[in-house]
Amino acid sequence: MIPPPEGPAPLDPAQTTLGDMDAESFRRHGHALVEWVARYLETVPGRPPLADVEPGALTAALPPGPPAGPEPMAAVLADLDRLVVPALTHWNHPRFFAYFNSTGSGPGILGEWLTAAFNVNAMLWRSAPAATELEGVATRWLGEMCGLPSGWDGHINDTASTSTLVALAAAREALGLEIRSRGLAGRPELPRLRVYASDQAHSSVEKAVITLGLGRAGFRPVASDAAFRMDPEALARAIAEDRRAGWRPMAVVATCGTTSTASVDPLPAIAEIAAAARCWWHVDAAYGGALAALPEHRGVLDGAERADSLVINPHKWLFVPVDCSVLFTARPELVRGAFSLVPEYLRTPPAPGQRNLMDYGPALGRRFRALKLWMVLRYFGTEGIAARLREHVRLAHWLAGALEARPGWELTAPVSMAVVCFRHRPAGVDDEAALAAHNQALMDRVNRSGAAFISHTVLRGRFSLRAAVGHIRTTEPDVARLVEALEAAAEAADAGPAAGR
Amino acid sequence: MIPPPEGPAPLDPAQTTLGDMDAESFRRHGHALVEWVARYLETVPGRPPLADVEPGALTAALPPGPPAGPEPMAAVLADLDRLVVPALTHWNHPRFFAYFNSTGSGPGILGEWLTAAFNVNAMLWRSAPAATELEGVATRWLGEMCGLPSGWDGHINDTASTSTLVALAAAREALGLEIRSRGLAGRPELPRLRVYASDQAHSSVEKAVITLGLGRAGFRPVASDAAFRMDPEALARAIAEDRRAGWRPMAVVATCGTTSTASVDPLPAIAEIAAAARCWWHVDAAYGGALAALPEHRGVLDGAERADSLVINPHKWLFVPVDCSVLFTARPELVRGAFSLVPEYLRTPPAPGQRNLMDYGPALGRRFRALKLWMVLRYFGTEGIAARLREHVRLAHWLAGALEARPGWELTAPVSMAVVCFRHRPAGVDDEAALAAHNQALMDRVNRSGAAFISHTVLRGRFSLRAAVGHIRTTEPDVARLVEALEAAAEAADAGPAAGR
Repeated sequence: MIPPPEGPAPLDPAQTTLGDMDAESFRRHGHALVEWVARYLETVPGRPPLADVEPGALTAALPPGPPAGPEPMAAVLADLDRLVVPALTHWNHPRFFAYFNSTGSGPGILGEWLTAAFNVNAMLWRSAPAATELEGVATRWLGEMCGLPSGWDGHINDTASTSTLVALAAAREALGLEIRSRGLAGRPELPRLRVYASDQAHSSVEKAVITLGLGRAGFRPVASDAAFRMDPEALARAIAEDRRAGWRPMAVVATCGTTSTASVDPLPAIAEIAAAARCWWHVDAAYGGALAALPEHRGVLDGAERADSLVINPHKWLFVPVDCSVLFTARPELVRGAFSLVPEYLRTPPAPGQRNLMDYGPALGRRFRALKLWMVLRYFGTEGIAARLREHVRLAHWLAGALEARPGWELTAPVSMAVVCFRHRPAGVDDEAALAAHNQALMDRVNRSGAAFISHTVLRGRFSLRAAVGHIRTTEPDVARLVEALEAAAEAADAGPAAGR
Repeated sequence: MIPPPEGPAPLDPAQTTLGDMDAESFRRHGHALVEWVARYLETVPGRPPLADVEPGALTAALPPGPPAGPEPMAAVLADLDRLVVPALTHWNHPRFFAYFNSTGSGPGILGEWLTAAFNVNAMLWRSAPAATELEGVATRWLGEMCGLPSGWDGHINDTASTSTLVALAAAREALGLEIRSRGLAGRPELPRLRVYASDQAHSSVEKAVITLGLGRAGFRPVASDAAFRMDPEALARAIAEDRRAGWRPMAVVATCGTTSTASVDPLPAIAEIAAAARCWWHVDAAYGGALAALPEHRGVLDGAERADSLVINPHKWLFVPVDCSVLFTARPELVRGAFSLVPEYLRTPPAPGQRNLMDYGPALGRRFRALKLWMVLRYFGTEGIAARLREHVRLAHWLAGALEARPGWELTAPVSMAVVCFRHRPAGVDDEAALAAHNQALMDRVNRSGAAFISHTVLRGRFSLRAAVGHIRTTEPDVARLVEALEAAAEAADAGPAAGR
């Protein structure tokens, strides 16, 4: 999109001597980049959301090693157009309906730009007072928007996987078994430890359990009901059974907005069971917590006020660029207890009102992530954010209605939040394997068409297509275009080899 | 620095309806921000590097909750000037000599700007082919620049803490004790597990050991010699002793560029011992690996070619903004073995040449971090980077020489790479506690003066001041200014209460 350089592009003076890019060059390249990005954001809806590129093509097009001498920025930007953009799957695209979409919104992008320029490392209050305090302010604002208890402590991790790892490390610490000091191995007196979550929970729960040394056996999936919500009775039975068998139940993870169907576990009942079992209770609201920003949906977190910890990802459905996952906890002293380890070279005099964010997780260093969250909350305001989420919920129901009104389409789960699970069922085809192959082919056709990008899941053995509305620029015509693409793919499939079976 | 808005600032149309900031507004705010950032980078050398702000002041100056309605971007930017900048400790400052400085260089900042705009999540090859492949390319370029074996596999984590956690998780997996499946707890047949690193190793090693469930007892610090390098004989003795006592040695971590003094452990001897003990051998070259980019210093990594894993942080001394930590490994299959867990909704058809980066660590989501690394390598070229590092090494020795030439100053460790450890010793003062208090006061005075920001460490019980040269715009006059500030602080201390003792 940037015109190719005419003749040899100039090098910035600092490239060939010492020092950084000079201010004049920074301005020039920066302004060019603003135009480039603005143009990218304007034109991205005209591109296929899913990259259509051969594996290894980008790698093969680049030199095997780095250049010895400096290259002009124009050459780098030219390669961006020529090589990088064609190999992008465009997440910042209004017809990206796969997984959970993530929006790099205008104010969020500008927030990241400032973060890169400041380049602070918020390990200690002292090393980054602005980042440390804004992380407190912005997470408190987020908590207030979503109706969380005002006393909770919030901090930002990269992803919900890390937030859940931190929460479960605190749960391990809360056992009082001297695990931080003595570890788990070679201690015959220790019971085996278990974490419970529904069979719909995110894979990061099991991954955190493995990382913490509990092993896959330390994770017990609990049955969910017909609407994919954890069955509290099954949870209570599992805990009782495990206790009898010598396990020590350590934590229960409930989900508000599961990855496959956005289902919501019955939080009050689970809270009760977790409390009775003296388990840490963690709520994974990475996706669904955002919905509580809508006054009419605040009840989605009812019961969560009893949680020990809860995660909401502003980089999922709150228009903040990746990465930004907020972990709230009612028991920050246990999070610090699990992770705080202060070497001499990082020791600072203790002072009230100063928290050192390095004490809150496995990583010492951390970016100034609060800035983008703070800027998004201010730029749109809570009502502006709520209005956008409300529209996404409406569009999801619109999509579900449009599919149900057409012959051959069926929903495979109740529509929850802004997630629609569905499949196409040609007349007379009942075999699950054939339906799976048919829908897989259909999905591939839609994705290859460039009209939209959707993903899949498997629900009770039924291969399902899945569309999540979540990009800030998604409009009704975008969803209509997805419906058209699905219909076209189904027609093509009916006319194709599958019809001949 | 941005002039205050005249009259009520306008809202962008999209703020009050739906959708994102419109393209016109994005251009306007983006260009203003380029000017703001350019001006920030130009003027930052005139600011004190360490924030002079009361704890809680920023928090108190902001509203307790988020705004309901949208706010004009001009109001946000005005608060940036009024509230955020005064509370910044300026890492992107040529006289930031504390910890390990980190440069947000021009090309690195521009790389981050693109990353924010693309906003891809590189969990699967399919979800981000460009990010996935560029992560392979840029880490291979980095490895080549630093002389690492060409067959190693590289991927990017946020910080070295995470890279080390990943490496040690792979080490745990390499034991073949079914820890991934069965965990560590409640298994009487399992031995206690231990990880070894020198008493100068970074605290993140011990933190990773805790996180993985080995406990603090699972970390054994090994004595270092007079130059703060791990003593290989002490390592061999510790391993032998532990074996006799029933421990299973799991991993050895050597450091190339320790945090306190930038000392380098004797890699070949440690490689030998780790191999004989059948331990995973991880090299923490987070800081020091960069030095190997200088042909005349390539030997600093001699022996590391035998490592199982090695970490280099481009966000430390390679002019890439935080966060960017590259973990190289000769055994990627064990990293994947430790972490791969693929739920149905993320299943993609296996294909050659496609790696899914979610398999390489605890976090599922990941930003497009390779772009900034790639842009920095191209913009400066390896020779340009080497020239800048060489200058930093020269400046560190210049600083050491300047101090040694002045009465009352002494080095407390050999100068290594670009790190200088020193202290001031007034005539007649020998008591360590008095010297510690004197140097602490001196450091505070320098830091409060606004001339420079330095930090401290304790070496064999001696409180030491510490300056690391690492910012791309640090010049000899910057270092000279530090020397002046140190001298002024020492004079003031001599004339002050301390002199009266």
